[in-house]
Amino acid sequence: MAASSGMPSESPAVIPTVVNVGLMGLGVVGTGVAAHLLGDGPSLSDIAGRPVKLKKVLIRDISRPRDINLPAGLLTTNAEDILADPDIHIVVEVMGGTDPAENYLRQGLAAGKHVVTANKEVMAKSGPELMALARNNGANLLFEASVGGGIPIVGCMMNELAANDIRSIRSIINGTTNYILTRMAHDRTSFEQALGEAQELGYAEADPTNDVEGIDAAYKLTILASLAYRRSFEPVDVYCEGISKLEPQDFRYAEELGYAIKFLAIANLDDGGVQLRVYPALVPLEHMLAKVDGVYNAVEVDGSLCGQVLFHGMGAGREPTTSAVVGDLIEVVRKMGSQTQAVNAQHGAEPQNGTPLTVRPIGDLQARYYIRLDVADSPGVLAQIAQVLGDGQISIAAVLQRDTNPETESAEIVITTHPAKEASIQKALQAMAGLPHVKRVSNTIRIEG
Amino acid sequence: MAASSGMPSESPAVIPTVVNVGLMGLGVVGTGVAAHLLGDGPSLSDIAGRPVKLKKVLIRDISRPRDINLPAGLLTTNAEDILADPDIHIVVEVMGGTDPAENYLRQGLAAGKHVVTANKEVMAKSGPELMALARNNGANLLFEASVGGGIPIVGCMMNELAANDIRSIRSIINGTTNYILTRMAHDRTSFEQALGEAQELGYAEADPTNDVEGIDAAYKLTILASLAYRRSFEPVDVYCEGISKLEPQDFRYAEELGYAIKFLAIANLDDGGVQLRVYPALVPLEHMLAKVDGVYNAVEVDGSLCGQVLFHGMGAGREPTTSAVVGDLIEVVRKMGSQTQAVNAQHGAEPQNGTPLTVRPIGDLQARYYIRLDVADSPGVLAQIAQVLGDGQISIAAVLQRDTNPETESAEIVITTHPAKEASIQKALQAMAGLPHVKRVSNTIRIEG
Repeated sequence: MAASSGMPSESPAVIPTVVNVGLMGLGVVGTGVAAHLLGDGPSLSDIAGRPVKLKKVLIRDISRPRDINLPAGLLTTNAEDILADPDIHIVVEVMGGTDPAENYLRQGLAAGKHVVTANKEVMAKSGPELMALARNNGANLLFEASVGGGIPIVGCMMNELAANDIRSIRSIINGTTNYILTRMAHDRTSFEQALGEAQELGYAEADPTNDVEGIDAAYKLTILASLAYRRSFEPVDVYCEGISKLEPQDFRYAEELGYAIKFLAIANLDDGGVQLRVYPALVPLEHMLAKVDGVYNAVEVDGSLCGQVLFHGMGAGREPTTSAVVGDLIEVVRKMGSQTQAVNAQHGAEPQNGTPLTVRPIGDLQARYYIRLDVADSPGVLAQIAQVLGDGQISIAAVLQRDTNPETESAEIVITTHPAKEASIQKALQAMAGLPHVKRVSNTIRIEG
Repeated sequence: MAASSGMPSESPAVIPTVVNVGLMGLGVVGTGVAAHLLGDGPSLSDIAGRPVKLKKVLIRDISRPRDINLPAGLLTTNAEDILADPDIHIVVEVMGGTDPAENYLRQGLAAGKHVVTANKEVMAKSGPELMALARNNGANLLFEASVGGGIPIVGCMMNELAANDIRSIRSIINGTTNYILTRMAHDRTSFEQALGEAQELGYAEADPTNDVEGIDAAYKLTILASLAYRRSFEPVDVYCEGISKLEPQDFRYAEELGYAIKFLAIANLDDGGVQLRVYPALVPLEHMLAKVDGVYNAVEVDGSLCGQVLFHGMGAGREPTTSAVVGDLIEVVRKMGSQTQAVNAQHGAEPQNGTPLTVRPIGDLQARYYIRLDVADSPGVLAQIAQVLGDGQISIAAVLQRDTNPETESAEIVITTHPAKEASIQKALQAMAGLPHVKRVSNTIRIEG
């Protein structure tokens, strides 16, 4: 923080007459950003207060047809044309992935260039290190587009909500999986069917692992938590469960019990530690997060002063992401010549005064649980299950038992619990799985809120 | 904008070693801000990057008992102790009202002090003028707390969403009236009863005019619209209808038709003009704004790039407002020594390049309408009403007619229309009121979304 980085220098950087931008990447988002810099939308120069010009665009293949007409001489396949050009003041990176993007960012910052990036993977894995590099080179590094698309959550965590101690962040920050869960909830489709539709619509990639296993959400949560708790976290600090094990009947039971199933990314303070987790969860139907449907994202921040503030909007796509990238660009241009510490001081590159917050293991979680079991239709099975829970000091909140399926001679039991420790629940689940009449512990879902 | 105000000076202001704050007002919000500056919550100095100290607090009556213990010598009843002290760098004004607050703000800015204010009335009536004064004196003027309490909407309009052309703002920005409407909707109480309860709970003032007639919401909308459309508006530009004419049956019919009734403050671009309006409106039940209950506020911004972004949170109260005030304070401290233009450039003090946007009169509004009529139980009355609407080229979307009340020999007819021009609707309403069997046009409510 400021105290350790010392008072800022009072000699301002020289402000260029025209601010030149080098754009790295011309995919969906890059095309949006380039179009904006070339004159679409409100005048960037007017809003930023200084003339801003797109000087170079890095692409992989110069011969590929594109959605946008760019002036001759703007395109290059050589990153050095941006990184080694002293007249390029700002690098905008929208390539994605770590290699070669991270290296480019390092080179740009080391050369004192300001950087705007949409790269969640790089920011989650190396954000604090890059922030330090920026600070040491008098550069700004902004990354609004790395989380939540058009939702201004990164800037708000850094600036508008800076007065708050953050108690928790509960969020839906992956649009692909929210689309899949919305389909499963409304139409009782299977996971596979909903995923296939998402792929057809272009919401999910051919290999959907990053989305459905929560890797994408874990990157974003890492970034938000680092801002909220002013220390650095890594993606491995996030406990992660994907959504592929959800079945249509989970949605039916959830609704019957008054819940929606949402894929949440949660960070919260607990007993001096921070708990970071991504998993599908039951959310009370009346909660705002339960009402977030389709590809929308939402982030609920619970702050010591502001209370619960919810942000809801488009979490991906060309225009929303362009909104975030260009917003950052405007901020960088407005701040040129000022102490760059202004932007960087608040990121979690260094622990706060006092003991740094630890990461709490998932076993420490206190939560309510939904447990669905496939049991043999025999007398006394519910009593045995209740006994296991009682032995673990876990109390039952509700039980649903369905009519037996005569074909399989199975019955389905759904139990919700009062708050219990995750470690106790896991032990009880193992014991249940060993009961003679329990055919399968079909699913366990945490209940939030 | 920047083009007309020229390139900024490159000589930075001297940055003080300790930043001193003068606080004006020690009511609910002032107490929260003072507590924060005196050590509650995360360290302001750490977060802002420089030592920040509360030097003076202006109050009216020094002998009055208070909720907070302040160090001796901090209190004063003389504004000059803050305004004329060259060692006070930032004035935080949380007194409210225009007199003497506005004068104090002017004096502070004229002396080159940075100003943070929560004063919606002053910012709505004189914001652009004060922004110009700030600019001319190298000072920053921030006012996050003037709209939406803990919701960071002012900062987001200025900064994070700056890349967008704003198509519309639709908001619930008065918690008192949202509480009243929520009570009326859920419990079918009368307006008077709900207001009385809000007063008992301290949500409404003894004289509730400012809230229930929409004056408070009009101030806030003026501020948001000035930021969104980068020109100055005044409260008189806002068309305003209060909520006192709503009756319990309006909520019943609304629900039957699939709507909630919400007190909306709306700004939207329409044909080169801006329409500003505050009135109760029917909002589809599935819309996020329909789900905003109790004293919560919400603001939905529709931007050219970000699409619809919704902000939801506590719009008033000590802590949420303190979050906004202290957030501004942090921003001012972080920016000290930088070009102050950075903050001020984007406020609507000067029209954008090109023709300034005009304010469209309410008669130009295109909307759908809900009309409730009290009619005599005679044959042909609906035909007459339909005739009037047809004559005005207004087409009917739905009709509800209730059983006759035998005591009054009256029937109630509710009509919703397809989009029509406000001026045509008003003409039709007059004609309806003159029909022999129409006893009363009981209510007309616009339908939004």
